[in-house]
Amino acid sequence: MRDFSADHRWLSLNTATVRKQGSLLEIIEACARHGIRAIDPWRDQVAAVGIDRAARAIRDAGLDLTGYCRGGMFVADSALRTEVRDDNRRAVDEAKALGTSCIVLVAGGLPQFSRPGSAPSKNIEMAWSQVHDGIAEMLEYARAANMPLAIEPLHPAYAADRACVNTTKQALDLCDAIDPARSGMLGVALDVYHIWWDPDVMAQIPRAGKDRILAFHVCDWLVPTRDMLNDRGMMGDGVIDIKRVRAAVEAQGYAGYSEIEIFSNDWWGRSMDEVLRTCIERHKTVV
Amino acid sequence: MRDFSADHRWLSLNTATVRKQGSLLEIIEACARHGIRAIDPWRDQVAAVGIDRAARAIRDAGLDLTGYCRGGMFVADSALRTEVRDDNRRAVDEAKALGTSCIVLVAGGLPQFSRPGSAPSKNIEMAWSQVHDGIAEMLEYARAANMPLAIEPLHPAYAADRACVNTTKQALDLCDAIDPARSGMLGVALDVYHIWWDPDVMAQIPRAGKDRILAFHVCDWLVPTRDMLNDRGMMGDGVIDIKRVRAAVEAQGYAGYSEIEIFSNDWWGRSMDEVLRTCIERHKTVV
Repeated sequence: MRDFSADHRWLSLNTATVRKQGSLLEIIEACARHGIRAIDPWRDQVAAVGIDRAARAIRDAGLDLTGYCRGGMFVADSALRTEVRDDNRRAVDEAKALGTSCIVLVAGGLPQFSRPGSAPSKNIEMAWSQVHDGIAEMLEYARAANMPLAIEPLHPAYAADRACVNTTKQALDLCDAIDPARSGMLGVALDVYHIWWDPDVMAQIPRAGKDRILAFHVCDWLVPTRDMLNDRGMMGDGVIDIKRVRAAVEAQGYAGYSEIEIFSNDWWGRSMDEVLRTCIERHKTVV
Repeated sequence: MRDFSADHRWLSLNTATVRKQGSLLEIIEACARHGIRAIDPWRDQVAAVGIDRAARAIRDAGLDLTGYCRGGMFVADSALRTEVRDDNRRAVDEAKALGTSCIVLVAGGLPQFSRPGSAPSKNIEMAWSQVHDGIAEMLEYARAANMPLAIEPLHPAYAADRACVNTTKQALDLCDAIDPARSGMLGVALDVYHIWWDPDVMAQIPRAGKDRILAFHVCDWLVPTRDMLNDRGMMGDGVIDIKRVRAAVEAQGYAGYSEIEIFSNDWWGRSMDEVLRTCIERHKTVV
């Protein structure tokens, strides 16, 4: 496993981590101030400043991109299916324009939450099936653009409202079904927050292998967790043995960035500089 | 699948559902008023009225017992291990005195939460190992008392603080490892709240089979869930297709009670009679 203690050259910042503190351009400036070499921006943050300005600022700062958040939300009423397809194709076009390494896919949960306006449903098996079909369709478009797709299994706490792909095994089963040739265009984004509890994850990471591990995300699981979505912890403040997971991922040959993604009402309330300083310190000590 | 629409003879009430509204004796009286034939009491509720009075009240009311909540919390510092063992043996003795069908086991998460006073740890693999050893030890005692143990896999949201057994597969792997002969003394308690999201559960329920399905619990998953522990929903108010899971369980020959267990700040704020009336109505319509 690589030694992160001396510097933070392998730290990437998911820009949601400081989304309340400033625009994407301000975040990019802050990364330059702190010597952060890579980011993973969100579509709404890019849209807010305009994709041309965003792309130029990223290029000018010399930043690597470790992903683009996010595509997916594949589960929807049939009337909305074309809209979903087109939305995901736009995500591919934007990712291409930005020059990112992959698009992170959040599968979508039940249709009423995945794509509001869809009729309420409790049929999770239908959701799984729509996710399969949606990824397969998006992959054709992404393949033509040479833009890899990274399925992110989310913690089962989000099965209903954000993603019905909740284990690494399930994400890899989708990869096997949709891209059996392992073309390199479909893989997974592994976030310790979502997978740390899984008794099967240490068997699944070797199954993924280097070619299917497209991104590695870190934050921490707090006890108690006071908000299901926005109370994620700074690395070291929770219960996750992050090094255990990173060691397993790197044992497969993963040599990319360790991306910090923290949705936290607490950290959103602090200054951008304080958050980034803390990220850097924890990256060196507990990641 | 059995038709529950005509009556509620197969409804059992987990007494935590109305724990804030009255003592165990008052709950037993309310069950009599509402024609509820079975309960699953908690140890603290039994202790509060005294086990002899509790046992007598249960007998006098002619109630069946569908479990006893709870044994477990096996993860602990070695200095606390004897205390844990003795605590679980007392649970067996109490269960025997009450005449219940099984003890529900909540495995325990990391030691600092499972047994406060234990040193903080992030080692979930060690927690898994202690759970295995703790169940194996407790089973010897339970076997002598002819008291079956039901491992309840809890939702992965509780992996850190309540139970590091989070899938039906994991619980059944423990059963296979500890009781390979399928003696009938070790099985699982399946609660739709904990397992509904799992893409593997429909394959695991047949693996469990009739002899290892010792209890079946229902409530619902609300969106949003405002409290990680105490915002569980009344059946029908959330996203779980309860009948899908019950059908799978009954296809294995399960013919016992459907036990309602709802931890909810909302429902704890209503009258006991309103809660029980609602439970009965939902049992007939959505369970």
